[in-house]
Amino acid sequence: MGAGARGRAHGPARAGLLCTSRAGAGSAFSGARRPALAGTDAVAATLYHLQAELAELLAQVPGLPGAPGTLASACFEGLPALREALLRDAEATLAADPAAQSIAEILTTYPGFYATALHRLAHALHQRGVPRLPRLLSEYAHQRTGIDIHPGARIGVAFCIDHGTGIVIGETAEIGAHVQIYQGVTLGALSVAKTLQGLKRHPTIEDHVVVYANATILGGNTVIGPHSIIGGNVWLTESVPSHSRVYHRAQLHMARQDDPAGELIFSI
Amino acid sequence: MGAGARGRAHGPARAGLLCTSRAGAGSAFSGARRPALAGTDAVAATLYHLQAELAELLAQVPGLPGAPGTLASACFEGLPALREALLRDAEATLAADPAAQSIAEILTTYPGFYATALHRLAHALHQRGVPRLPRLLSEYAHQRTGIDIHPGARIGVAFCIDHGTGIVIGETAEIGAHVQIYQGVTLGALSVAKTLQGLKRHPTIEDHVVVYANATILGGNTVIGPHSIIGGNVWLTESVPSHSRVYHRAQLHMARQDDPAGELIFSI
Amino acid sequence: MGAGARGRAHGPARAGLLCTSRAGAGSAFSGARRPALAGTDAVAATLYHLQAELAELLAQVPGLPGAPGTLASACFEGLPALREALLRDAEATLAADPAAQSIAEILTTYPGFYATALHRLAHALHQRGVPRLPRLLSEYAHQRTGIDIHPGARIGVAFCIDHGTGIVIGETAEIGAHVQIYQGVTLGALSVAKTLQGLKRHPTIEDHVVVYANATILGGNTVIGPHSIIGGNVWLTESVPSHSRVYHRAQLHMARQDDPAGELIFSI
Repeated sequence: MGAGARGRAHGPARAGLLCTSRAGAGSAFSGARRPALAGTDAVAATLYHLQAELAELLAQVPGLPGAPGTLASACFEGLPALREALLRDAEATLAADPAAQSIAEILTTYPGFYATALHRLAHALHQRGVPRLPRLLSEYAHQRTGIDIHPGARIGVAFCIDHGTGIVIGETAEIGAHVQIYQGVTLGALSVAKTLQGLKRHPTIEDHVVVYANATILGGNTVIGPHSIIGGNVWLTESVPSHSRVYHRAQLHMARQDDPAGELIFSI
Repeated sequence: MGAGARGRAHGPARAGLLCTSRAGAGSAFSGARRPALAGTDAVAATLYHLQAELAELLAQVPGLPGAPGTLASACFEGLPALREALLRDAEATLAADPAAQSIAEILTTYPGFYATALHRLAHALHQRGVPRLPRLLSEYAHQRTGIDIHPGARIGVAFCIDHGTGIVIGETAEIGAHVQIYQGVTLGALSVAKTLQGLKRHPTIEDHVVVYANATILGGNTVIGPHSIIGGNVWLTESVPSHSRVYHRAQLHMARQDDPAGELIFSI
Repeated sequence: MGAGARGRAHGPARAGLLCTSRAGAGSAFSGARRPALAGTDAVAATLYHLQAELAELLAQVPGLPGAPGTLASACFEGLPALREALLRDAEATLAADPAAQSIAEILTTYPGFYATALHRLAHALHQRGVPRLPRLLSEYAHQRTGIDIHPGARIGVAFCIDHGTGIVIGETAEIGAHVQIYQGVTLGALSVAKTLQGLKRHPTIEDHVVVYANATILGGNTVIGPHSIIGGNVWLTESVPSHSRVYHRAQLHMARQDDPAGELIFSI
């Protein structure tokens, strides 16, 4: 593999692991001016430095479940698997979105990819019992993207969020493989009584499901069967079997302004 | 009260008054490295400094209704009451959200709390007739959180916004005590004719009401009676009495992809 | 024209062209401390500097359709027309929004104006075949405002977005003159099969149309005729003729909590 090919390989790795490229327009533009990493040693040095920084951050968190250094080390050992998962997410978006031109475009400009990347990192910390930091990460992603994924949510491989603003995915939601979710979708709780703390309150979305814009799916017992399509603006609080297509047959009230008497009920 | 207890008391006060903790991940993390305020004198010195800064900012605003120093002083005299109000907001969120672990988590990570805090500050400036600055504050909060509350809106005690992205609360909306509002909710105008400037164009939400995700409630004469629950994705332009539960009985059109002939009308 | 009048004229030009005023509260406030530009020479010097910076940025983009300097020059020659277009957008918002007090307020605080301004700039680059940079600009605006407009979308004069969080406007959408769009609206694709790449997949909105909050309008063959009003929370996948008013006649299920047996079907 030549230097050029190595250069290309570093691109996704840096964007996937560090997510620096969307940390604001300043870094998005200035990033291009930085010299590319020279080789494997430089990558290793950067990773070593970042692991030390994470350990330092973790040392400030009260109530850690283990030694900061051990936790940071475990997180960094998980990075190759995380990188693979993020590349599968990006490839799923490239396959699904006609407007997407390349993996590089997705890594650098897609907020859905960015939120997914930070979620996978936050979820790993959450699973290891780190308090508070996972929520700081998820709210940081929420602030940058409008996509609010609780660190506790379980999300399968090849996940694709397009546009994404307004998405809410609750703490106990479970999402299978090859799922696509659009802007404004809520996977929420049907009731938010405090007594439900710790119980499964959010829905399960099985493999190969698509959920269109502004659909609201609620409840811990609500299961969307595999290969289903949920239409936009749907309010869904019950399970549907596999291969379902659920959408509004809304009655629309349509009037021509120049002839208000001639009203039509227009069903779509 | 020992030093430890004072330390805890300073935490919420700083987050509530200054809202520095969500001003970006940089400050969220670096904030932890700053030495804690040493005591009452340091707090007083900080407040004095901030009041002078506010007066300086106000001096740059044309058309002030009074002397900048007097206005800044009045704002700072209102801070203890503001702090109390923000703690009641945070406590309401802790009581309502099963995913919330502690007041500290809400103060540092909940965008709904952050937007409410900036609104209460912007509203105080708006009530005193300060031009432009309240809107700059509300748009700053909107940019950070996706929650757009006009400084003119009146919001009662123990207000709880969960998730919040996409919320719009109009200039003449009135919200009672103990109200909960979810992401994507609009409290808007039924018509936006320019002639309505200055009139009440946005709804009134009375005490102990819950409004779920993506509901749109419009009109200056629309009153949601106390103890009502408004379901998600509802489009509501008329008043409802107390203890109402308003939700979609949408007809859903459900088809199994593997047997397109076998369509079901699925009503939930 | 005296110095004062020139001073006023510079204000909107700077905000419209450079959009510095919403780049974060830091710059929003610190901007007021900078000395005003002294006159025409200073403006020309600033523009010359910015044009050179743009050429430098473009030089880093692989696959440019022409020389970086030529492209940057063409962009800057388009600035007077862009300025006129942005002032017409701001005037349209001032005319439409009862809460808007002045053009200055819109230029400095309205995210809808900000997203429109960045879109018009990104669209000009996109039309000239510049790769990647237009999407970086549109995602930067998306991040700051929650408004996601693909650089390919064609938008007519006097466009008004109010509030705007959650808006998605797809790559092949066409929007006429004097159109108003509210928060949460999607102008999207009915199907997102990758084979549709390059085809018209998003709707056409003709002149003088208003689309209210959270409406979802899908499909490349969907045309909303001129002078139509699309109500909130509508899911629309078919064309409607001119002067249409399309809105939900949702059946609402309304129950009084204190008398659950006495259910009402409440139609609005």
